[in-house]
Amino acid sequence: MILYILGSVLMIEAAFLSLPLIVSILYQEDAGFAFFLTMVGAFIAGFLLTLLKPKQKVLYAKDGFIAVACSWILLSLVGAIPLTLSGEIPSYLDAVFETVSGFTTTGASIVINVEELSHCTNFWRCFTHWLGGMGVLVFMLAVVPLSGGQSIHLLRAESPGPSVSKIMPRMRNSAGILYLIYLFLTVLQIICYLLGHMPLFDSLCHAFATAGTGGFGIYASSLGYYNSYYLQSVTTIFMILFGLNFNFYFLLLMRKWKLAVHNSEIRCYLGIIAASIFLITWNVLPSFPSLYDAFHHTAFTVASIITTTGFATVDFNLWPAFSKAILVCLMVIGACAGSTGGGMKVSRLIILYKAAQAELQRLVHPNTVKVLTLDGKRVDNDSVRGVLAFLVLYLAVFVFSVLLICLDNLDSSTTITAVLATLNNIGPGLGIVGPTGSYATMSALSKVVLTFDMLFGRLELFPMILILLPSTWRKHS
Amino acid sequence: MILYILGSVLMIEAAFLSLPLIVSILYQEDAGFAFFLTMVGAFIAGFLLTLLKPKQKVLYAKDGFIAVACSWILLSLVGAIPLTLSGEIPSYLDAVFETVSGFTTTGASIVINVEELSHCTNFWRCFTHWLGGMGVLVFMLAVVPLSGGQSIHLLRAESPGPSVSKIMPRMRNSAGILYLIYLFLTVLQIICYLLGHMPLFDSLCHAFATAGTGGFGIYASSLGYYNSYYLQSVTTIFMILFGLNFNFYFLLLMRKWKLAVHNSEIRCYLGIIAASIFLITWNVLPSFPSLYDAFHHTAFTVASIITTTGFATVDFNLWPAFSKAILVCLMVIGACAGSTGGGMKVSRLIILYKAAQAELQRLVHPNTVKVLTLDGKRVDNDSVRGVLAFLVLYLAVFVFSVLLICLDNLDSSTTITAVLATLNNIGPGLGIVGPTGSYATMSALSKVVLTFDMLFGRLELFPMILILLPSTWRKHS
Repeated sequence: MILYILGSVLMIEAAFLSLPLIVSILYQEDAGFAFFLTMVGAFIAGFLLTLLKPKQKVLYAKDGFIAVACSWILLSLVGAIPLTLSGEIPSYLDAVFETVSGFTTTGASIVINVEELSHCTNFWRCFTHWLGGMGVLVFMLAVVPLSGGQSIHLLRAESPGPSVSKIMPRMRNSAGILYLIYLFLTVLQIICYLLGHMPLFDSLCHAFATAGTGGFGIYASSLGYYNSYYLQSVTTIFMILFGLNFNFYFLLLMRKWKLAVHNSEIRCYLGIIAASIFLITWNVLPSFPSLYDAFHHTAFTVASIITTTGFATVDFNLWPAFSKAILVCLMVIGACAGSTGGGMKVSRLIILYKAAQAELQRLVHPNTVKVLTLDGKRVDNDSVRGVLAFLVLYLAVFVFSVLLICLDNLDSSTTITAVLATLNNIGPGLGIVGPTGSYATMSALSKVVLTFDMLFGRLELFPMILILLPSTWRKHS
Repeated sequence: MILYILGSVLMIEAAFLSLPLIVSILYQEDAGFAFFLTMVGAFIAGFLLTLLKPKQKVLYAKDGFIAVACSWILLSLVGAIPLTLSGEIPSYLDAVFETVSGFTTTGASIVINVEELSHCTNFWRCFTHWLGGMGVLVFMLAVVPLSGGQSIHLLRAESPGPSVSKIMPRMRNSAGILYLIYLFLTVLQIICYLLGHMPLFDSLCHAFATAGTGGFGIYASSLGYYNSYYLQSVTTIFMILFGLNFNFYFLLLMRKWKLAVHNSEIRCYLGIIAASIFLITWNVLPSFPSLYDAFHHTAFTVASIITTTGFATVDFNLWPAFSKAILVCLMVIGACAGSTGGGMKVSRLIILYKAAQAELQRLVHPNTVKVLTLDGKRVDNDSVRGVLAFLVLYLAVFVFSVLLICLDNLDSSTTITAVLATLNNIGPGLGIVGPTGSYATMSALSKVVLTFDMLFGRLELFPMILILLPSTWRKHS
């Protein structure tokens, strides 16, 4: 059954590989041949795998996690082939790092001069963001029929956030609607870009990278390349929009205004953004010519970091420690659940806050029972425990990664933010891996660790931890 | 009722202030007059407070927390007076920092040249460690009669660890036995020191500082002053012993060998120490002349950090990043529950690990119910939730403190470890606040924040958070 899913995923990837191929034909680039070879290879392998009739049609929760984790690893391994085949990223390890960074919408790059890459490679890099943002398996669910109750396991394993709410009674429709909203917003952003006289190719790449909250740019100075406040502001707004819970748009579509506006996660998310912009603007004011400049670049940076996109207009690595500390907090918090962003998610933060509050209450009044509620709905104990376990595992992965990266003997700020920037799918950190730096100089071990961190972050720990546990494979055979 | 407790605490402090007074008479130092004045003042104030007959004799859980938090603040404010009166620490804020650092067994110092201080001041600094280590209120419980069921609230609020187990059916006896074990180990250490030809005054000070897992030294180079591996090894061993759960010694006394040996917290604690020594020795080997030297100093440093004592024989700030990262992890982990050490405590770590494991199990097999056990006993849901809430609040206090310290614009390593070193009651951190540095250069705001962090750490968050919440005072009046 898992093999069947892997086969479908490969065939979908083959289909999408045709897009950079078209780009290469338009720009008459040789690199397109590498994409063509990979496409044919992936299609044949995928076709053969789907020929294997699944023995059992039932998909358990555990299988869902394993299928998702394996799909993502396979996607990245295959997606990296054209980058190495074309010779643009000679080391396959680096290419895998770059592709995982793309699919997980991280945006951490080992490319030192991104402007030297061919158009089709840059297009593929940005397009992996778009695919990875909404989830490749969610896309599969929208097009491939799977019998009802099973697909929820796949969706749960791939979707960000503490709980998955089915928008529509039928899974396939939910996935389709999500993708339609996603597509609509992306097209809207492309139109806004074109109105600001951004070239079509640039508009496509940047819109894909924004939609997936990825952050790969096609210029060394990222969005700072355009000296246009209009284009940067459009990016700021769309970054924030893509960081919202997509249920919000669905509720808007259904004209349930009240429900949409009274969502505490969205209020909290916007509140955090406003407060951060205020504090950082105040902190960095002396280094900008005017209040408006400071506000503009702060708003862009805050939106870029909290949505875990990772675009940059200025080198925030040079900002004062207080501003950098706030940015690091935003890195960890991340966007809303059910968005394309990474991080812990705002709704988890709310649940943690409420759980701690309830515990304090219980200390003072030991005999009262308090029920946790979120937007009037009761948060059951399982959800709370799940979120707390997430926090514990998150810290464990973080500490373990930092220890391994420390073997490189870099400064603490680089080490810590490199892990945070990959684990939360942001991209740039501080220090050497800051917005003007790259991950190219890190050791092979560090790159492997950070690659895993990106997958940990995008799949929200559980699927990746499961496939790394020996007990999973022992019992499964 | 709370005022009555505060009065008793003041009188106890007055009694203990006589000890540095005796030291000052022996060494014929003028600074003793400051101690005399403070002693008389504290006694009179304490006596007046205890005259107030408590209106209600019942002590609720909440009152227990408030009483403990207020006692500690009062103790520190009064204990700081002689330091400023004698002119040895001119700024009262600095003196409060130093005294809180003493009582909370942190050992973070703002004194730049500790060897210039008078004997009685140094004695008082080290003695506050000893008093703070076991808890001033635990001492009070051992001598002042309080009606039965109420004292558990005080003990629970002051004792480190996720849960308090009464050793003896009667509270007063438990507290007494704990103090006897404590006294016995301290005397044993003093004897070991004297056998190694350490002067009596030095032996007393260092034994007090070790017993409380504090870390104030009386020499600028801490334990590095003695070029004797014997004295340093004695310290290593006693630091580890004082980091053990005191129930262990009680079980040994009762000759329950099996129960004592099969304690998973103690096994885990010793395992972490062994693993850390192994990894760091391997990492720092190139910078030492021999394997034995590397092992000796690593063992000392690991014991000093995990027990949150904070002594130093070498400047571990110069060690490679990997070693420093392990030390930072040890800082957070801390010693066993029910010891004099700070940090998260090993038993909390075990509970967190088991909770995360159970959650992973539940993901894979959604319908099984798993019961958490520790040493064969069931860990009830309340304990688990308490530990998780502790983790959340711990992170919140940590992040908030780091943000405030960041306003000083120091390097990230100094900022982060300054907060960790105070919040976990260790003392020295890395960078500017490393083992050879001091907290003297920090801004007043930072010192206030770090002072609160020390109290947060020693009282394990809850009491301090309660007295900082406005709602506590609203409802209470």
